[in-house]
Amino acid sequence: MAQIDHTVHVALGERAYDILIGPKLIEEAGAILAEKFPGRRYGIVTDEMVAGAQLPRLTAGLDAAGLSYDTIVLPAGESTKSYGMLEKVVEGLLSAKLERGDLVIALGGGVVGDLAGFAAAVTRRGMDFVQVPTSLLAQVDSSVGGKTGINSPHGKNLVGAFHQPKLVLADLSALDTLDPRQFAAGYAEVVKYGLIDDPEFFEWLEANRVEIFSGGPARGEAIARCCAHKARVVIADEKETGVRALLNLGHTFGHALEKDTGYSSRLLHGEGVAIGMVLAHGFSNRLGLAPGQDSGRVAAHLQAAGLPTRLADIPGELGSTDELMAAIAQDKKVSRGALTFILTRGIGQAFIERQVDPQAVRAFLEEMRAK
Amino acid sequence: MAQIDHTVHVALGERAYDILIGPKLIEEAGAILAEKFPGRRYGIVTDEMVAGAQLPRLTAGLDAAGLSYDTIVLPAGESTKSYGMLEKVVEGLLSAKLERGDLVIALGGGVVGDLAGFAAAVTRRGMDFVQVPTSLLAQVDSSVGGKTGINSPHGKNLVGAFHQPKLVLADLSALDTLDPRQFAAGYAEVVKYGLIDDPEFFEWLEANRVEIFSGGPARGEAIARCCAHKARVVIADEKETGVRALLNLGHTFGHALEKDTGYSSRLLHGEGVAIGMVLAHGFSNRLGLAPGQDSGRVAAHLQAAGLPTRLADIPGELGSTDELMAAIAQDKKVSRGALTFILTRGIGQAFIERQVDPQAVRAFLEEMRAK
Repeated sequence: MAQIDHTVHVALGERAYDILIGPKLIEEAGAILAEKFPGRRYGIVTDEMVAGAQLPRLTAGLDAAGLSYDTIVLPAGESTKSYGMLEKVVEGLLSAKLERGDLVIALGGGVVGDLAGFAAAVTRRGMDFVQVPTSLLAQVDSSVGGKTGINSPHGKNLVGAFHQPKLVLADLSALDTLDPRQFAAGYAEVVKYGLIDDPEFFEWLEANRVEIFSGGPARGEAIARCCAHKARVVIADEKETGVRALLNLGHTFGHALEKDTGYSSRLLHGEGVAIGMVLAHGFSNRLGLAPGQDSGRVAAHLQAAGLPTRLADIPGELGSTDELMAAIAQDKKVSRGALTFILTRGIGQAFIERQVDPQAVRAFLEEMRAK
Repeated sequence: MAQIDHTVHVALGERAYDILIGPKLIEEAGAILAEKFPGRRYGIVTDEMVAGAQLPRLTAGLDAAGLSYDTIVLPAGESTKSYGMLEKVVEGLLSAKLERGDLVIALGGGVVGDLAGFAAAVTRRGMDFVQVPTSLLAQVDSSVGGKTGINSPHGKNLVGAFHQPKLVLADLSALDTLDPRQFAAGYAEVVKYGLIDDPEFFEWLEANRVEIFSGGPARGEAIARCCAHKARVVIADEKETGVRALLNLGHTFGHALEKDTGYSSRLLHGEGVAIGMVLAHGFSNRLGLAPGQDSGRVAAHLQAAGLPTRLADIPGELGSTDELMAAIAQDKKVSRGALTFILTRGIGQAFIERQVDPQAVRAFLEEMRAK
């Protein structure tokens, strides 16, 4: 029997699904899938990085359960979230003669999950899919909630679909082999849940950060609490017409910085979010909304986790402020020309502000660049 | 005020919309949209063929209503339903800085509607769109029901989304400039509605075919009845998990023939459907399900409308029976390896059969090729 430490139910009516969290779920996926989805065939989508450590664990379990599958292996990295790779995955699923009732398995981090989920959404106008997230970021954020997609030259995630998985299997042991920098980047999204509306969780993170990084039971608990938080938000607002936008705390600044650094290893997504959250707190403080000591506490916690917190922490030259502002304006969280930001009144008190003055943002960015 | 001859409501809850049918709705679109969707911007997607006759009519109305829009013009023809053109439309919408709340207008036939609708479905994870169908096929079939998509080298419409329009404007005058061969091809889909479950409508078509082709009031009435029929089916089964498959009458054979002829002008979609419907009736007769006189009556009516009804009517050489069978097996209406066909017990008595023996299909095709 599979060892399941935590189960989070995402109650979305006929699109409802479970997130299972446990130490060895990749090996156990075959048995779980055979029981939950009898008679299906599988298309595994993964990347070259993940395939080495995790694919044999998954396929051994599928083989043991007698399941039939094909595998599509993609290059690793954010640039894989492209039109060309979408075509490659869709055509691969069709070549494997997978049918509408069959299942796509996304084995990997956020890139694989977003791309494979989008490919599942559009192949034969919608195949089912299962997320097997192997990074902390994917386990607490991208594998939950049904946002799938690829990047456009105009910006990140501008092309995609809302397509909920049928099941999420978060294997804790996969995190043991994760590059520490990737783990820290994922941790930025963990912190985000505290900053949005759960100051007690932020305090708990301050007390348990070391154990979360070293792999004690607090790690699984942190992941479960993040998934439960995200599930509540997604249930309330699946298509992001309202409160779901709170999950974008730090992301408008973060996406602009990611675009500016070419979605390269200069700045991982979670690192952009870390800087973005510090900027969102600082900007809210500048507007007289949030106390300065909260900004400091946020920055200190992220810094202790090994994350960048200032523009100056990004290696290399940043683009001009004009370029950053253009990237901010093109972010999809813009409505009718006014800038929408997630601002905050302090730790755990984020809110959506749809009337942010672009000049105030520009002035704040200019000042932050000088630091 | 716009002259609206018929209104068909598609009652899909929060995705409900109206199909308006009238003589000059392209000119009147600007005024209608300004009233229904105040404050939106527009991205018009059309093709080079339609742009000549219809685009100035549309933009004049949008200009008069003071609406802001960008236009994306694509090459005409089925090969436009490709990954490359999807990227072109999505990037065009993003370049025009259209936002999630803005609207895509699909001005054209089925190709434009399917492609523009799919682009709307995936741009910023879902923009609204309006169908302005300019072919008979699009007015009675492809613009209604939310199926959008592109073609794969593996087959037609294998990549796409269910994405309902916010409004359909069927302009009858657009049909006056339609190539007669295209009009006849669209008429095959009109006949289909009678053949599925409405023998009285088939009889009415036999009596009114000449007026429908010459452009009298029966034309608008035929379109309205087809839209109402399709709306009922889509309301009952939006995602085609059941009865909606009946709308594929003639399409499994038809898609295989279209694939075999390279989606070229050798065989238009509606022409493939015409032959496919005759084959479906003939095959049902061969299985002892349907009376032979019904097959003859169907073939006679389609032939009188100028449509091909036999494999031998397709110009050029067809591929081997093996190739046709492979195309049939790859059609997305296949489930768990068994062939699914829409068969019939006679005119107006179609049904879904999920256990068709491939050998019987092969033998029937071999025989039909010899004719």
